[in-house]
Amino acid sequence: IDEEDPARLDELLEPMHAADIADVIENLSAARRRTFMSLWSGEIDGDILSEIDESIRDEIVELMPKSALADAVREMDSDDIVELIEELDEPEQQKVLDALDESDRAAVEQSLTYPEYSAGRMMQSEVVTAPEHWTVGETIDYLRNEDEHLPDQFYHVILVDPRRHPVGYVALGRLLSARRATPMRDITEDSFRPIDAFANEADVAYAFNQYHLISTPVVDEHDRLVGVITIDDAMEVLDDEHEEDILRLAGVGDESSISDTVVETLWQRLPWLGVNLATAILASFVIAMFEATISQIVALAVLMPIVASMGGNAGTQTLTVAVRALATKSLTGSNVWRVVAREAVVGVLNGLCFAVVMGVVAWIWFDGINLAGVIAIAMVVNLFVAALAGILVPLTLERVGADPALASGTFVTTVTDVVGFFAFLGLAQMVLL
Amino acid sequence: IDEEDPARLDELLEPMHAADIADVIENLSAARRRTFMSLWSGEIDGDILSEIDESIRDEIVELMPKSALADAVREMDSDDIVELIEELDEPEQQKVLDALDESDRAAVEQSLTYPEYSAGRMMQSEVVTAPEHWTVGETIDYLRNEDEHLPDQFYHVILVDPRRHPVGYVALGRLLSARRATPMRDITEDSFRPIDAFANEADVAYAFNQYHLISTPVVDEHDRLVGVITIDDAMEVLDDEHEEDILRLAGVGDESSISDTVVETLWQRLPWLGVNLATAILASFVIAMFEATISQIVALAVLMPIVASMGGNAGTQTLTVAVRALATKSLTGSNVWRVVAREAVVGVLNGLCFAVVMGVVAWIWFDGINLAGVIAIAMVVNLFVAALAGILVPLTLERVGADPALASGTFVTTVTDVVGFFAFLGLAQMVLL
Repeated sequence: IDEEDPARLDELLEPMHAADIADVIENLSAARRRTFMSLWSGEIDGDILSEIDESIRDEIVELMPKSALADAVREMDSDDIVELIEELDEPEQQKVLDALDESDRAAVEQSLTYPEYSAGRMMQSEVVTAPEHWTVGETIDYLRNEDEHLPDQFYHVILVDPRRHPVGYVALGRLLSARRATPMRDITEDSFRPIDAFANEADVAYAFNQYHLISTPVVDEHDRLVGVITIDDAMEVLDDEHEEDILRLAGVGDESSISDTVVETLWQRLPWLGVNLATAILASFVIAMFEATISQIVALAVLMPIVASMGGNAGTQTLTVAVRALATKSLTGSNVWRVVAREAVVGVLNGLCFAVVMGVVAWIWFDGINLAGVIAIAMVVNLFVAALAGILVPLTLERVGADPALASGTFVTTVTDVVGFFAFLGLAQMVLL
Repeated sequence: IDEEDPARLDELLEPMHAADIADVIENLSAARRRTFMSLWSGEIDGDILSEIDESIRDEIVELMPKSALADAVREMDSDDIVELIEELDEPEQQKVLDALDESDRAAVEQSLTYPEYSAGRMMQSEVVTAPEHWTVGETIDYLRNEDEHLPDQFYHVILVDPRRHPVGYVALGRLLSARRATPMRDITEDSFRPIDAFANEADVAYAFNQYHLISTPVVDEHDRLVGVITIDDAMEVLDDEHEEDILRLAGVGDESSISDTVVETLWQRLPWLGVNLATAILASFVIAMFEATISQIVALAVLMPIVASMGGNAGTQTLTVAVRALATKSLTGSNVWRVVAREAVVGVLNGLCFAVVMGVVAWIWFDGINLAGVIAIAMVVNLFVAALAGILVPLTLERVGADPALASGTFVTTVTDVVGFFAFLGLAQMVLL
């Protein structure tokens, strides 16, 4: 469709939501995207631009004519512009900044002074405030007069003192249902909790989720109101955090996207496969220590991957639960030892179950009661160690300030491989030779 | 602290947010929780009750005195009551229903007629509506008079026709900033998209995320307004879906929680470890086919886990990216073959990289150029197969209507283990003997 006809494109895309159009653009191949942009780039508005995935934003901004870009960014809220600019290369950044009018540019540049992944980067500077001594009637009259300058979406009116410190906020539903003479101060919400502009975005998202916030004011180091964060931004961060966790657990670069090229994908995955190769070679050294034993009893070579594989799986189960619990802050000082103890007990019980099963299988298969005993004991040992590694590795990483999702998997499977091979082959050497 | 003194407990918990109190209760051990409940159960209000994790709600409701429960549920919105009731056993369900007044009970029972995980279960029946022909002034006057009966939080006024079909909605911010004489119909939002009460909750959450909705009306099979879903409910579903994905990918029961007992945890994990044992034994059969070869060249036993492990890791990487892309609907018919081709190419390139590395390592370690060649070729084959399995298995599961996160991991590692061992040992038998 996008080979020829801009009018037909218009017709097709017209009824679609900006987010869906952005998805269409993302799903085009790189070559077709260029054709698409040459036909339709003038029509890309602010809504579409803020929905487009980071990985191709640079390309899109570069291909947009200056005038279309200026129109697009002028209708965007400052938080969306900040998000757009963050991911762009230098020349495209400048192109966007030049397209802004002065007050917007000042707001965006202010936001960019806060560290990456901070509340200051998430907030929009467009806020609706009222002096703390106003009544409901005064506020409504003011809002009617300011119609032109209000943000697209807002959910609270923030009360400020003369030095612009936020002292409370009023939900619009409350404002609408109150009598005109009611002082604003009397109908503020309990959920009011201003956020420091330097706070980490993950903590902000956690607060939104935990306290069911819709919007919350952001203050600078002098407690002065500098912006507001709304729930859609928090939802996006939450989504990104989840994505990051899941990708990191699998050892994939956390910025990976379905529209990446072959080379990008390769670079994301090679490092982790490299680490895995190193740990697999480490496990091989353990096997090599028992070469003589294996050459006498080849059944050991047949059975040894089972012990390692069960350990790896059990360790990953525990690990995943632990990483999630840490991410949702439900694994804390007060219950950590109870959870560790539970995992250890579950590890031993799992081990006993599969020791019996595997013992019987090995006995029947290789007709050796001693071999059966060896694999049974190795199974218990490895599943116990897997459980401990699965919970202690992420806890340790968290304590030293690393992301527990990032490297836990590799550590845990290294431990279960090494322990699994060592326990099984070592016991076999002692018992069977 | 909770051993003795209810007054001291009051003092400590008083300033805390309901969600934090719920977390405290969840983190208590079972025995201490009973003590806690005997001291403090009368103080548990609706906010706390709706924050408490499903796994212990039953216990809490059972331990609450009838009067406290009645007070608690009376202040809850109908969607929170439905969520509470869904997870309770029969006698506790009845206890909650009895505590409700008649209109609330009718709303809750209505909601429960919709299937589990549907929009009908997520919605609250408390809605704010206005006839479509009203003006801004009429609406505001009406809201002031209805003050008592309005829900705690609402973000839109829904316009309905005389047969209660929703025809549009007006954001409160817009309502506040418009002149009193403006017809409501002139200031409705573009984002209006009513949701079918039978729609799946995951699709509802997707719509909220994709279209940045704050609240959206729910209609029954006759297109009549029956309730409204707000963003906090959607955020919760999104959170649950993520949790489910991540836990299923790791082969942990998707209802697992940090406050589960040893027995619950064991039951969640045993089935998947059992499946893994079966597939590990399958891989062992492949090794057993080559027992004679291994007994002549023990180096094969040392190196074979490396090939399998690299395949498993590469497969998991691809798989995770594919499962996430399916969950976020960014892997669709239009780009599926491009993504499959990309993964296949990345698989071969990864394979070539690690074939060179592993070839050199094997050559140096065992001083055999033929062995080095065998492991290099097996590596390329297995990483290529891993990439294909990693993308095709979840796609197939999705196509047959299964959850791609659920069983993909096991399928993929089975494929990579079997292919890895077979390619390496089979080639070795042909080349080295």
